[in-house]
Amino acid sequence: MEDSQPRFLKACRLEPVDRTPVWFMRQAGRYMEEYRRLRRRYGMLELCRNPELAAEVTLQPIRRFEPDAAIIFADILLPLPPLGVEFEFAAGEGPRIHRPLRDPADVARLRPVVPEESLGFVMEALRLVRAELDPRIALIGFAGAPFTLASYMIEGGHSRHFLATKRLMYEEPDAWRNLMSVLTRTTVDYLRAQAAAGAQALQLFDSWVGALDPDDYREFVMPYSAGVFRSLEDLGIPLIHFGTGTAGFLELIREAGGSVIGVDWRVPLDEAWRRVGHDRAIQGNLDPLALMAPRPILKGKVEAVLDRAAGRPGHVFNLGHGFLPETPVDNVSAVIDWVRGYR
Amino acid sequence: MEDSQPRFLKACRLEPVDRTPVWFMRQAGRYMEEYRRLRRRYGMLELCRNPELAAEVTLQPIRRFEPDAAIIFADILLPLPPLGVEFEFAAGEGPRIHRPLRDPADVARLRPVVPEESLGFVMEALRLVRAELDPRIALIGFAGAPFTLASYMIEGGHSRHFLATKRLMYEEPDAWRNLMSVLTRTTVDYLRAQAAAGAQALQLFDSWVGALDPDDYREFVMPYSAGVFRSLEDLGIPLIHFGTGTAGFLELIREAGGSVIGVDWRVPLDEAWRRVGHDRAIQGNLDPLALMAPRPILKGKVEAVLDRAAGRPGHVFNLGHGFLPETPVDNVSAVIDWVRGYR
Repeated sequence: MEDSQPRFLKACRLEPVDRTPVWFMRQAGRYMEEYRRLRRRYGMLELCRNPELAAEVTLQPIRRFEPDAAIIFADILLPLPPLGVEFEFAAGEGPRIHRPLRDPADVARLRPVVPEESLGFVMEALRLVRAELDPRIALIGFAGAPFTLASYMIEGGHSRHFLATKRLMYEEPDAWRNLMSVLTRTTVDYLRAQAAAGAQALQLFDSWVGALDPDDYREFVMPYSAGVFRSLEDLGIPLIHFGTGTAGFLELIREAGGSVIGVDWRVPLDEAWRRVGHDRAIQGNLDPLALMAPRPILKGKVEAVLDRAAGRPGHVFNLGHGFLPETPVDNVSAVIDWVRGYR
Repeated sequence: MEDSQPRFLKACRLEPVDRTPVWFMRQAGRYMEEYRRLRRRYGMLELCRNPELAAEVTLQPIRRFEPDAAIIFADILLPLPPLGVEFEFAAGEGPRIHRPLRDPADVARLRPVVPEESLGFVMEALRLVRAELDPRIALIGFAGAPFTLASYMIEGGHSRHFLATKRLMYEEPDAWRNLMSVLTRTTVDYLRAQAAAGAQALQLFDSWVGALDPDDYREFVMPYSAGVFRSLEDLGIPLIHFGTGTAGFLELIREAGGSVIGVDWRVPLDEAWRRVGHDRAIQGNLDPLALMAPRPILKGKVEAVLDRAAGRPGHVFNLGHGFLPETPVDNVSAVIDWVRGYR
């Protein structure tokens, strides 16, 4: 009975597994020919909003690589339009928010989101995937963390210095707290809906939180991320907390919550795990750019991550951030094989 | 006699000082009206290549703020043209290298640099500044570290993922080692020439080294940065080693060398110093974006940095990276006043 549990979920719960589970952030995406073929016919948001297509894209890497988990194909910005913030993907440039938030009035205009209604296509895609998925493969739902969503909404897209975000945070603390509260509530409801639709684990992406100093993280962000995790605890499923650039304050990331802590490639996994504490599982942390390296170098890097995990229960092999579109598909297969064959 | 030593130099040597010395990375620059006035008449590289103008720009923040150190006004890419790699500053976009390095043949074409000749204007500017500078204010020379220079030369400008850099590093290790050796030699000669021209401390900027995983840093970068520091040790002057995104491998930054370690704002200063070791001085680490905050927040952040240094000899107050052009000048004065008045 226990053995029929996906090994990914067992590892998240710090239970012993037959081998280290592996999946990849952005494992469905442009580096795959199957995906590019669909993208020639459909826009990014069209794919996300059509449950059959989103399910199909979610399953593409499962068919090809058989990783230990599927992550629902979606974009972290999908909750923005229901909040009243429209955006699009400009060709090759990432998201463009039409009217970025800049003042308290913009924050006050945000609308409450009922994910089962306005984001129902994500839940439908989850149900479709779960129905098709091998029971040994876990299904992961996810959402952007309040800070990362806020930074997109304020900056209007990718940002280098997060100047507008920090300005609002410092100069309009009430508006900031309102915004973070709205995003916390939205994220909680969205993730709970995903769990109800079949997600067996939930990942919170706080991709850009490494722009902050530790004091700002503690004061302006941690209470909200912690609120998300606290509100999901009763679900009893693994909660993954991922950020990049967090090597300076991993202790605070742990304190904010998550039963699994995802770390980027800039910190040695053993050192990160020691600081996070071995009572939490850890996910990571191969440099996605290592996939561009010749096989012997790539293999050495995969083994270095596994060596640092030292066979301790609770390691989920993953990247330290998502795949780049330039990633050679064959190298992805090779990484999976090496993780499987390790030891 | 000993008391006539600039307090900046004493702090770098871990000697007790009457108060924490302070200077700022990019303290001469676009946030100052005096600088913008000159930039309306001269291009960035014109300013750098004219010793009188470079000296004038170097002294602008000294006159206005009286920080404890002046850093020579120059660009870290100045050694590129003598190496045979031409570039320009595209309006508002940072540097554009005309023909980025992409293969071993490009590396083989690099020319040896004699800094006293092709970069003589920097040395002349140093002499002019030193002649005008109050003896209590130290003069700092600087250069880009081999990795950061290499990444600009390969990427052609700013980069988000450093894909081309890592590709060359992984796929053409011999060319990479040749390139890093050339840059190490160039950097050493350039910094020695600056010391001979009056620089009393030297800072190595490895601004983008935080893109690497710790293993790559150790294998592909550390030997060269260490080579720079080793070759400068006999000068007997403080050597500052600065990088951003290094919170995951501060121990390696220390190991590479430098009597003063500069850290960015993403790690608490006390924690960073503990990891670096209290036998080294530490420089940092206010978030440059904190200068955009209202005064009470900014003051709290300045004091938090000073509190973490705990009055221990060897702290040089600075930013965690350079000022942004949007920085309000009055806030810079306020920070200086708070550092001076602390305790």
